[in-house]
Amino acid sequence: MSLGEFSDMTVEDAIASAARKYGNRGKWGPEDHTGTANYVTPEKIRAAAALVRKGRAFSLAFPFDASGPQTGQFGRINPMHSMTLTGSDCASGSVPLPHGIGFADDHLYMPLQCGTQWDALSHAFDRNVMWNGYPCTEVSSFGARKCGVEHLADRLTSRGVLLDVPRMKGLDALPDGYAISESDLVRTIERQGPTAAVGRGDIVVLRTGQLGVRRTMGWGDFAGGPAPGLSFSTLGWLQRTEIAAVATDTWGVEVIPVEKDAGLFEVHQILLALNGIHILENMNTEELVKDQAWEFLFTLGPSRITGAVQAIINPIAIK
Amino acid sequence: MSLGEFSDMTVEDAIASAARKYGNRGKWGPEDHTGTANYVTPEKIRAAAALVRKGRAFSLAFPFDASGPQTGQFGRINPMHSMTLTGSDCASGSVPLPHGIGFADDHLYMPLQCGTQWDALSHAFDRNVMWNGYPCTEVSSFGARKCGVEHLADRLTSRGVLLDVPRMKGLDALPDGYAISESDLVRTIERQGPTAAVGRGDIVVLRTGQLGVRRTMGWGDFAGGPAPGLSFSTLGWLQRTEIAAVATDTWGVEVIPVEKDAGLFEVHQILLALNGIHILENMNTEELVKDQAWEFLFTLGPSRITGAVQAIINPIAIK
Amino acid sequence: MSLGEFSDMTVEDAIASAARKYGNRGKWGPEDHTGTANYVTPEKIRAAAALVRKGRAFSLAFPFDASGPQTGQFGRINPMHSMTLTGSDCASGSVPLPHGIGFADDHLYMPLQCGTQWDALSHAFDRNVMWNGYPCTEVSSFGARKCGVEHLADRLTSRGVLLDVPRMKGLDALPDGYAISESDLVRTIERQGPTAAVGRGDIVVLRTGQLGVRRTMGWGDFAGGPAPGLSFSTLGWLQRTEIAAVATDTWGVEVIPVEKDAGLFEVHQILLALNGIHILENMNTEELVKDQAWEFLFTLGPSRITGAVQAIINPIAIK
Amino acid sequence: MSLGEFSDMTVEDAIASAARKYGNRGKWGPEDHTGTANYVTPEKIRAAAALVRKGRAFSLAFPFDASGPQTGQFGRINPMHSMTLTGSDCASGSVPLPHGIGFADDHLYMPLQCGTQWDALSHAFDRNVMWNGYPCTEVSSFGARKCGVEHLADRLTSRGVLLDVPRMKGLDALPDGYAISESDLVRTIERQGPTAAVGRGDIVVLRTGQLGVRRTMGWGDFAGGPAPGLSFSTLGWLQRTEIAAVATDTWGVEVIPVEKDAGLFEVHQILLALNGIHILENMNTEELVKDQAWEFLFTLGPSRITGAVQAIINPIAIK
Repeated sequence: MSLGEFSDMTVEDAIASAARKYGNRGKWGPEDHTGTANYVTPEKIRAAAALVRKGRAFSLAFPFDASGPQTGQFGRINPMHSMTLTGSDCASGSVPLPHGIGFADDHLYMPLQCGTQWDALSHAFDRNVMWNGYPCTEVSSFGARKCGVEHLADRLTSRGVLLDVPRMKGLDALPDGYAISESDLVRTIERQGPTAAVGRGDIVVLRTGQLGVRRTMGWGDFAGGPAPGLSFSTLGWLQRTEIAAVATDTWGVEVIPVEKDAGLFEVHQILLALNGIHILENMNTEELVKDQAWEFLFTLGPSRITGAVQAIINPIAIK
Repeated sequence: MSLGEFSDMTVEDAIASAARKYGNRGKWGPEDHTGTANYVTPEKIRAAAALVRKGRAFSLAFPFDASGPQTGQFGRINPMHSMTLTGSDCASGSVPLPHGIGFADDHLYMPLQCGTQWDALSHAFDRNVMWNGYPCTEVSSFGARKCGVEHLADRLTSRGVLLDVPRMKGLDALPDGYAISESDLVRTIERQGPTAAVGRGDIVVLRTGQLGVRRTMGWGDFAGGPAPGLSFSTLGWLQRTEIAAVATDTWGVEVIPVEKDAGLFEVHQILLALNGIHILENMNTEELVKDQAWEFLFTLGPSRITGAVQAIINPIAIK
Repeated sequence: MSLGEFSDMTVEDAIASAARKYGNRGKWGPEDHTGTANYVTPEKIRAAAALVRKGRAFSLAFPFDASGPQTGQFGRINPMHSMTLTGSDCASGSVPLPHGIGFADDHLYMPLQCGTQWDALSHAFDRNVMWNGYPCTEVSSFGARKCGVEHLADRLTSRGVLLDVPRMKGLDALPDGYAISESDLVRTIERQGPTAAVGRGDIVVLRTGQLGVRRTMGWGDFAGGPAPGLSFSTLGWLQRTEIAAVATDTWGVEVIPVEKDAGLFEVHQILLALNGIHILENMNTEELVKDQAWEFLFTLGPSRITGAVQAIINPIAIK
Repeated sequence: MSLGEFSDMTVEDAIASAARKYGNRGKWGPEDHTGTANYVTPEKIRAAAALVRKGRAFSLAFPFDASGPQTGQFGRINPMHSMTLTGSDCASGSVPLPHGIGFADDHLYMPLQCGTQWDALSHAFDRNVMWNGYPCTEVSSFGARKCGVEHLADRLTSRGVLLDVPRMKGLDALPDGYAISESDLVRTIERQGPTAAVGRGDIVVLRTGQLGVRRTMGWGDFAGGPAPGLSFSTLGWLQRTEIAAVATDTWGVEVIPVEKDAGLFEVHQILLALNGIHILENMNTEELVKDQAWEFLFTLGPSRITGAVQAIINPIAIK
């Protein structure tokens, strides 16, 4: 496959070149923690709200439970939900309470990337530097002192646009390892028409179809194996369009295995550390597709965990 | 203080009376898990979206971290956030990775009621029965088989309305233990004017001012002690108005200590188990107040933890 | 296979019969929490200490880490160990400390049955009653009010005796599903000779060989599948010998699948709830076998977690 | 107070001097992970077993539960024990099981230093180097690749000797901030007589009395505040005596506040990183004192958590 401008480079050179050409560090001042979320303006939010014509809300998350895709690889397990008070305790008289009241309480233990998830800008580094030039040592065992999820608590409301790439290609789903090219993106937008136009501040939700296939057929290595996703060669398009965030229905947004030999999450390295573009993963797009909801008001309220480098999320698309 | 129709009753009689008069069980069929969220219609969502005129999103959550209000009482601790990969590991060479990429990952352990939170209908019972008549034994150590948070994943988008009760009374904050009466609610609505009208499907956010005071002065017993909140005598109003949810900036929505001697969360007992009205707690309303945002589009995407009886949340109000 | 006295009974009848004939409830008074640990006397401990002739200590635990046998079945995962301060933080300067000192700290999340483990008497019930006649409702979401592990904190020091059943049969390991009979036990003792005599207060460690095989060949379903183990027909022998505890190198002590159709942990049901005999699982006996250490001083200090119904352990055998 | 040879030095000079004079790095070869545990020989274990004359085992741990001493400082909370199956579930019929069997299961989340605890040699560093010269970067977010607790799984059985310092001084307990000097140690040994002699391979358990006082009076800042403990000036004695480990009934072994201005755990810095002497903390010595058990067989089987830098423990003393 051609990697365009990066075709004949080593992985190190390709990354250095993309860093030089497509970086946004400093664009929003030396104290910025929010990257391309700065592209979202009040006008953008008003225009996004005006897209609500049907009055239906969609959850873009999939369920978090023991039936999830995690296998324990990289220490990533499915969430462990446990009860600390139950109806059983009340009904059996184990825990007596007055006037017929009863309660149930619960706890949760989870890796913050175990399901539908958002990567904070503090999640990846390029040569020991993170977004906006902060040294990666700002992310210690005490959490992220820079670019933690708390900075985005109210900053991810905008217009969402769904690009259904396999539909454009006449497929149910892209095959694992398929690298989505800039041409694929452009042709999908053309085919979907005006409601699929992509511009400043948008949250682009890419459907590859992989999540739908795996939820039906069995997870397999969904949470850590090959997947369709963005080609390294789309980095220019991603920066030029000035989008606020990019999301997919896969575990890693970018194509896996990555395109450059011996490489590892090359697209993350540029998007998070240099471009400041937000990444959302494991998005359930199937209901949106059924409803042909190509553009919508996208809202996301990530739990405000101070210093977290990622967040389990349930984005709501409103149409 | 007068409890109106419940004034001369024992706590057991008051609860039984309220259960008879203000219950909604069965109203949405025998299989319902979502209670008064059923009042939210497509028309309601469209009308709510039309309230977005300024283009600003507000997070109604407060930060989750070690500086939070929990004291360990009832096993409720502040969330424990820990890193499983850090910038320190990358910068020090402890964890070598190729081509200059680096990563940070994290885990979280928390009680699901440790901060800004939503109570699922499976959180409280009345005489061993929960919402819609399900036996409370449907909530076992394996989680909630009925009325878990997953049923509301896309059901809490509607019009929000902020009622600033202390402002109506000329106060900065209501005192701890103050029981908000129906008259207080009605007068607050009148004083705020047409944008504060409350009706079917609304999400009513009550400001008492306690959160603001405690965040400035120190938490003290904020997460488990006395608080201003709803009087038992407002149960009729809460049901009659056909609201979808009620929220406060306190840990328990209802007045603490409760009004009937020896009682314990009497209002929860009716709202969750009989009325099916959703309860949201520990809401940060201060930014809404500063902005005079009395009505707004309210969106909430709770983490879709299958079988959870409550959820840590970050509701987004859009104005 | 013949089940002797229980041969022609239904599983319910067999359990009821064993409960009647081999129960010890009340034997040590109405307040007892420690069952057959009461058989261990000062004389027993002194005699056990006199077995230390070589001066070598053996750990009977296997390692707890991500490479362990758990698969997530029944919510049982391998332990999740995470760092809260690291050498990376110190070396990289992320966490500055005075005068060249540095620290590392860590956290752990685990099911208490995820590895080498001891079942407290509060771990299993017979018809809603646990050891000594306590109602099983004494074990609520708040933990075990009766028979928690804290009662045995200093009570599991005694003589240990290793019975190598496959060696007696000329095998490396018993096959999965093999039911060890009373005759197997008696013949193993005879073949091993006087140092294998079993009597009051002893801790009997049965080697089946399964752990050794699986640690070499891959865990497979080790933590939840078929295994060699004790036959239901050994219940009489186990009670008559007045041993303090029985241990195996398998996940469940008893043969899996159990012998009675549709049954589930039938031996546990009698041993824990009726006999009060302590059960230890997932014991690494390989080093003892290599050293031909058939009898030894057995010591065990389970973490004193108040109200826990089981404990991750590292028993030390001293020879 | 005089610090003897270290009296007129800055904290940096005192640490450098102690490191030069009292270090043991390399003594047991370049691959060693166990430090002074190497002083324990088979002869030592046999002699220790011969001390068992009464036949009584003592737990040296205190209970781990919500009533423990942790306050959340440094992210250290008391252990969070929660049930994943209960007697309530069985009795109420929430979780149906065949033939009358019932089960209870549980989970645990805890900082590994939340109670009676052993510090692995990977717990502290001196100028970015840990025991035996390993770089501290060997302790990353993935745990300790060197000197984790797993290396000591069977290495902490030896003779224990209890030194009751306040008793020697005619006190119930040493005051907070009292620095135990070499002279205090020598005089305590003399007063207790021959059974208190300290030598190669011994595990020295120092009683200060603080734990007993605080368990009666309230924890206060027990887990992180001032405490009696070892003076920096005892480092020579600790190394010369060739003991295997030193334990106290306080949270930090050494005197707090430390003796040198602006210092922080100066004794840990030398003992763990240079001497390789094992440290045990929060030991309950009260029962040993009542029984006048001055010497005993000490056994400890720490949970074999691979790569852990400390361990919750329940040492057993047998007399």
